[in-house]
Amino acid sequence: MLVTILGGGGFLGQKIAAQLAATGTVGRRAITGLTLFDLNTPKAPAKAPFEVRCLSGDLSDPVALGAAIPKGTAVVIHLAAVVSAAAEADLELGLRVNLLGTMAVLAACQKVGGVPRVVFTSSVASFGGGQAALLADDARQLPGNSYGAQKAMGELLLQDASRRGLIDAVSIRLPTVIVRPGRPNKAASSFVSAILREPLLGLPTTCPVGDDFGVWVCSPRRAVEWLLYAAAMDTAPLGLDRGINPPGRRITVGEMLAGLEAVAGPQARALVTAAPDPAVQAIVGGWPAEFTATRARTLGFSVQEDVESLLRAFIADDLAATRADRAAG
Amino acid sequence: MLVTILGGGGFLGQKIAAQLAATGTVGRRAITGLTLFDLNTPKAPAKAPFEVRCLSGDLSDPVALGAAIPKGTAVVIHLAAVVSAAAEADLELGLRVNLLGTMAVLAACQKVGGVPRVVFTSSVASFGGGQAALLADDARQLPGNSYGAQKAMGELLLQDASRRGLIDAVSIRLPTVIVRPGRPNKAASSFVSAILREPLLGLPTTCPVGDDFGVWVCSPRRAVEWLLYAAAMDTAPLGLDRGINPPGRRITVGEMLAGLEAVAGPQARALVTAAPDPAVQAIVGGWPAEFTATRARTLGFSVQEDVESLLRAFIADDLAATRADRAAG
Repeated sequence: MLVTILGGGGFLGQKIAAQLAATGTVGRRAITGLTLFDLNTPKAPAKAPFEVRCLSGDLSDPVALGAAIPKGTAVVIHLAAVVSAAAEADLELGLRVNLLGTMAVLAACQKVGGVPRVVFTSSVASFGGGQAALLADDARQLPGNSYGAQKAMGELLLQDASRRGLIDAVSIRLPTVIVRPGRPNKAASSFVSAILREPLLGLPTTCPVGDDFGVWVCSPRRAVEWLLYAAAMDTAPLGLDRGINPPGRRITVGEMLAGLEAVAGPQARALVTAAPDPAVQAIVGGWPAEFTATRARTLGFSVQEDVESLLRAFIADDLAATRADRAAG
Repeated sequence: MLVTILGGGGFLGQKIAAQLAATGTVGRRAITGLTLFDLNTPKAPAKAPFEVRCLSGDLSDPVALGAAIPKGTAVVIHLAAVVSAAAEADLELGLRVNLLGTMAVLAACQKVGGVPRVVFTSSVASFGGGQAALLADDARQLPGNSYGAQKAMGELLLQDASRRGLIDAVSIRLPTVIVRPGRPNKAASSFVSAILREPLLGLPTTCPVGDDFGVWVCSPRRAVEWLLYAAAMDTAPLGLDRGINPPGRRITVGEMLAGLEAVAGPQARALVTAAPDPAVQAIVGGWPAEFTATRARTLGFSVQEDVESLLRAFIADDLAATRADRAAG
């Protein structure tokens, strides 16, 4: 089978590509070719037992997208997006990539000569609710940010196209993925990874919210697992509803810091100092922090492990590369 | 104030234009100019105490739309749409008009030099649920048809643009509007108006569903009233949530036919014969038939009257014109 990863050069795209190269399969079907597509030419995974094509282009360019999703493509994993801070800063850019780009993906998928599985990365940012909410599987998406609005629109587009039999879509509403490699940035959510990653690098950092602040999180390992599960699952039980709230985990900042201390010692924990920031609190306070995720469990999606496991996974998978990247930059 | 009605040539657009011409105001503000815009040049309302411009053009043409929404426009009533049967028959057409057209409306509104009120006609077709459901105000939109999906996407777009302060939108999810003038057509919902209108014209008709089949309806008078209320209401209490389920009324086919008999006699009732149609039942059976509409009542939206009042309104407002139209055609 042919597989395409849109946004294949990003953090999750590269992890999925590495996983596919390691197993050679999606579900139980052998991969015969993989295309990675991104704005800049993505890196090919090592030792893939199938042909890998790495292409660069814009999601809104039908010719480039047609090349990225060739005839016979069976699975498209659509990770390409303008992320939350950028979509908030530039509405037109967010709509062009996140909405019109997803329309272009749908158009390209209609030319492959079959009904391809499309795995769409939606987000908890498509919901409101705030700290107090426990969101059920039929919770309404009432986003408080443009990125979330565009993701919810993309879900509706792909859900309707699935009902029409044009594609076979599954939208995974990813939690905040931690621990992200890279550096602290201006995203309001930056601190959620930073308060774990920076101390593991031996660096000081600040935390803008209190210890009781809860976040709905998942590890990169779990995100990859969910997206690949969605790529192969039986979609008949989904019916009209193609949106999945996967079983992430609500973890408070206090639990994160306790986990950090358990895994890396009190000297790591001591590198995080409180620096309450009302501006950050105002933004992240609107994000939902807990979902029942009952349907996803029933459908067989794996459940997020605890914060210590999550930290050990980061140390095993990403810490050395993150350290090397910091040393280089 | 300047007012624009997009889709101003249609059934509801013409009724709203007539109402504005009669009162000269929206809320308590005097109208200084009205623009009616549609694919074909709309008819101007009689005796308007303000300038009326009637323009034709395509919603996706920015130049035409810019002329339709001139600088200084304070209210845009956006009724223009590819309706349900057509959007189901042609996905690309529906997306172009119902989604991209609404994006073009947003772009045009950003050029008026203010924050215009945008009243968007969404639809109960944006919900699923079926006969058994009673939908609360926070019910999720999970449409079983492309028209409803496109309307739900349009709501998200306008809600987010309102949050950003670019426009000030209210989306009214209209029930099935009865009694519609015109002729029976191929829309699955055609029978809901036909079983009342045709007998009032002295013509026989058939009913594809049973007497216990419920429909969430409103009269044209109420639809006009709601849309104009939305054009002038204080939107501060809406917060993020710009979607309104107005207080329509669940009426069964049996109640409609009893109302017909009460208003027009047993000979009118006898013109409706049962002709069960599983194909029609399969489509309309998925539509929600009842909403709590609690929020809209609290916000001051008027409540739909009973079926006899609704029939008497049709007789007063539209029967003569409908009869003349039939005689001419």
